[in-house]
Amino acid sequence: MREKPIILVTNDDGITAPGIRALVEAVKDLGQVIVVAPDSPQSGMGHAITMGVPLRVNKVDVFEGIESWQCSGTPVDCVKLARDKILHRKPDVCVSGINHGANHSINVIYSGTMSAAMEAAIEGVPSAGFSLLDFSFEADFSVAKAVAHGITKRLLDSAVPRHTLLNVNIPRLAAKDFKGLKVCRQAYAKWDEEFEHRVDPRGKDYYWMVGRFVNMDKGEDTDVQALKDGYASVVPVKFDLTDYKMKDWLLGEWKDEVK
Amino acid sequence: MREKPIILVTNDDGITAPGIRALVEAVKDLGQVIVVAPDSPQSGMGHAITMGVPLRVNKVDVFEGIESWQCSGTPVDCVKLARDKILHRKPDVCVSGINHGANHSINVIYSGTMSAAMEAAIEGVPSAGFSLLDFSFEADFSVAKAVAHGITKRLLDSAVPRHTLLNVNIPRLAAKDFKGLKVCRQAYAKWDEEFEHRVDPRGKDYYWMVGRFVNMDKGEDTDVQALKDGYASVVPVKFDLTDYKMKDWLLGEWKDEVK
Repeated sequence: MREKPIILVTNDDGITAPGIRALVEAVKDLGQVIVVAPDSPQSGMGHAITMGVPLRVNKVDVFEGIESWQCSGTPVDCVKLARDKILHRKPDVCVSGINHGANHSINVIYSGTMSAAMEAAIEGVPSAGFSLLDFSFEADFSVAKAVAHGITKRLLDSAVPRHTLLNVNIPRLAAKDFKGLKVCRQAYAKWDEEFEHRVDPRGKDYYWMVGRFVNMDKGEDTDVQALKDGYASVVPVKFDLTDYKMKDWLLGEWKDEVK
Repeated sequence: MREKPIILVTNDDGITAPGIRALVEAVKDLGQVIVVAPDSPQSGMGHAITMGVPLRVNKVDVFEGIESWQCSGTPVDCVKLARDKILHRKPDVCVSGINHGANHSINVIYSGTMSAAMEAAIEGVPSAGFSLLDFSFEADFSVAKAVAHGITKRLLDSAVPRHTLLNVNIPRLAAKDFKGLKVCRQAYAKWDEEFEHRVDPRGKDYYWMVGRFVNMDKGEDTDVQALKDGYASVVPVKFDLTDYKMKDWLLGEWKDEVK
């Protein structure tokens, strides 16, 4: 009998977030689930790793019948530590989330959820990050769970290309209004940040980042548009960031200075 | 008379690192330099932003005749805050570094140096990150300074495409052995992380990340190879992470489930 596949589950909202519980429930029938997740919220950590302080990792009892560990580090630390110290092998698949809030478009580069999945993909482990467009603690994860189940099953069953990494965002919709999965590209969008100025009780200035999301991309084939249209967006992501078009441009325009 | 261009200088090693001083010296004749950099080392922060705690920013006197600010946040926070609260406009160019240590190949995704430059590029500001392959506090930045000067001048002078972002690594070589600039692609490489286990004075386990860099890419056109051959590697970087090949694959193989 073939052993059950090992499914590594992590996130960036922390091990006690409702979203990771929804993800564990969504995939637990597909293999042996092991959770290694941050012990506190790590949103916006991007691909940060912990180098200046040591890491702590503790076994915890959070999900019934599921081996679970909480880690003092970032989502990327969790994936690295899981492989070396907990699984002692690569997992068969890694799923991250379900994030409370969108990780579409440019958010992919700020997202701890997606960075955890990317770390697994760099190791050659098929992976996906799931995000629900609802920040609420009481968010309804039922559609997101069905999506996560279906995609994780596909990642395990089919011979996916090496370094498969999917950024999956799920709209905030009831099942009856949900249209299905749509393969998209990352929309060109950004955050217009302003910083709110305040003065502390000792008279010193401080600032809170307050952002406004701006989508500059009118394309019909973007993740932002698919979500607007009622679909879950599926963007395949890669970690070769080379801009090949720009490479050709440089070789032409800067040819007196570069080889 | 045309106003001097504004050159925003930042880094991830912190405002007191020798590398940022070298970068300020390298570019100060090209425009009005303003430094906004972290108040402490932020290596490995990737594209992290600060959301859970407020930011502090203070004017400091570190570089003679150069307006300088230190910020409690990440390199990305520095770029965002510089625009909104210090410059009150976009800079004409943003340069980050000179990093103490390599940011070639996969390091681009873990690097605070490169994330600061990427943040500027998202805003449409031509930018570059510079890294010297020498971790030492006493590193010789003379070749790196010449490279940074030349590239920053080009970014200011020539009509570069929108969202230009360059990852520039400089070998640890004396000027006489340095071969010049080479335009490259990002090598496929990764870190094989192990975690060193220790026990604290209270009997609790903790772990230090210890990594071994592994280059799996035998290509002649990579940044790792160019550096080995004595060149400074110039990799144009983009922030659209969509894997377009994989998009086509999904539309073919998963066609019963996706649109």
